[in-house]
Amino acid sequence: MSTGRLSILGMGPGDPELMTLKAARLLRESPVVGWFCRHDRPGHARQIAGDMIGPDATTLRFAYPFTTEISVSDPAYLMRMGQFYDDCAARVATHLEAGQDVALLCEGDPFLFGSAMYVFDRLHERFECAIVPGITAMSGCWSAAQRPMVHGDDVLCVIPGTLDEAALVAWLEKADAAVIMKLGRNLEKVRTALRRTGREGRAIYVERASQPAQRCLKLTEMTGPAPYFSIILVPGREGAR
Amino acid sequence: MSTGRLSILGMGPGDPELMTLKAARLLRESPVVGWFCRHDRPGHARQIAGDMIGPDATTLRFAYPFTTEISVSDPAYLMRMGQFYDDCAARVATHLEAGQDVALLCEGDPFLFGSAMYVFDRLHERFECAIVPGITAMSGCWSAAQRPMVHGDDVLCVIPGTLDEAALVAWLEKADAAVIMKLGRNLEKVRTALRRTGREGRAIYVERASQPAQRCLKLTEMTGPAPYFSIILVPGREGAR
Repeated sequence: MSTGRLSILGMGPGDPELMTLKAARLLRESPVVGWFCRHDRPGHARQIAGDMIGPDATTLRFAYPFTTEISVSDPAYLMRMGQFYDDCAARVATHLEAGQDVALLCEGDPFLFGSAMYVFDRLHERFECAIVPGITAMSGCWSAAQRPMVHGDDVLCVIPGTLDEAALVAWLEKADAAVIMKLGRNLEKVRTALRRTGREGRAIYVERASQPAQRCLKLTEMTGPAPYFSIILVPGREGAR
Repeated sequence: MSTGRLSILGMGPGDPELMTLKAARLLRESPVVGWFCRHDRPGHARQIAGDMIGPDATTLRFAYPFTTEISVSDPAYLMRMGQFYDDCAARVATHLEAGQDVALLCEGDPFLFGSAMYVFDRLHERFECAIVPGITAMSGCWSAAQRPMVHGDDVLCVIPGTLDEAALVAWLEKADAAVIMKLGRNLEKVRTALRRTGREGRAIYVERASQPAQRCLKLTEMTGPAPYFSIILVPGREGAR
């Protein structure tokens, strides 16, 4: 008996219509569908999939063992996340070995900071894999904000807000255009780094791009906490306007 | 009479199935459809659209006045491209003023180095606009190459190959992960910069991602010229593998 194929499907930023035709087809056809989520939530990728998962599909819910209870700088973080991904990969492998195709859903694009990478890393040498790219969260944000990001020779830097303030300042001094991801509790540190580099005034804050609760405003007008999956855009120089 | 709406549709990297559900719907519905192309070619975005353009749609073909005959560093380049985009915007505006919706097609994602940005820049204050994000060329490439790009705190730099060698070296020394776009005649300069920064061995070359003629190989094994729309990927550090 031949083994199944693992398809990792990028689900895009939130609007189900921003799924690709290919992801929609594979999602509908797949006999086994898995996704990541917080233990107390349905999961963003699962919500985007909506009723497109086949009624007879086997579903695999991969609930993260923790979210912010353990710091990423704590060695226990890497160890426990590694064990979690080992378990996820083992559950997926059981279906692949039984000859069933598996679709693993991923918000945004799978290979740009996606959790599905860690399952891919563990299985790609043993099983056939297909990666279906998705609309990245950042494309969703700059499209919603209607802000062209890079013209001509601009360099775009995609920066995790988890870096320390000095590293953020060094990147923001150099980048022509910047996207800052993973805000959450890093928001005030990021804001300070933008202010220190004279770039706060141009920065745009976008939350839940392409979804009904979308918020899109100048960072200087934004108050209150930011969800982890919000983004700050710093558009680049302008070209032949 | 109300004016029409300009929808800028990201068509993705090449496989028509990598269009979003939303782009496919707007493409089919649009009474006027425009795209950019070389004077002697049909245009990549037009080819992706295939037979999805409605049979009764008015089509607008925007042929670039030149490709490589004038250097980008020549002041005549900016001036003549500016005139070209003025003309494109005027043709689009004629339809919008007549109350017709216009779809402007764009390979990849419209706001990441897309020509449609220059038309948007000229029209967005006068007309209602909608930006439909597309799968970026770089997502198409790293999905085809099956190479996860960034884990954890990695910074991704998207670098135009048009920069001079010293600037390329400076960026490649700093970036955790890098995508180098706009190769074409810049290939050997980019290769030298990768070698000088010790990163040639990890670099992956991808051409025509997601299309039948896709090529994907180690840069060290790649010979011959590169089309302008090929990409080099330098994956970042590896996370919790």
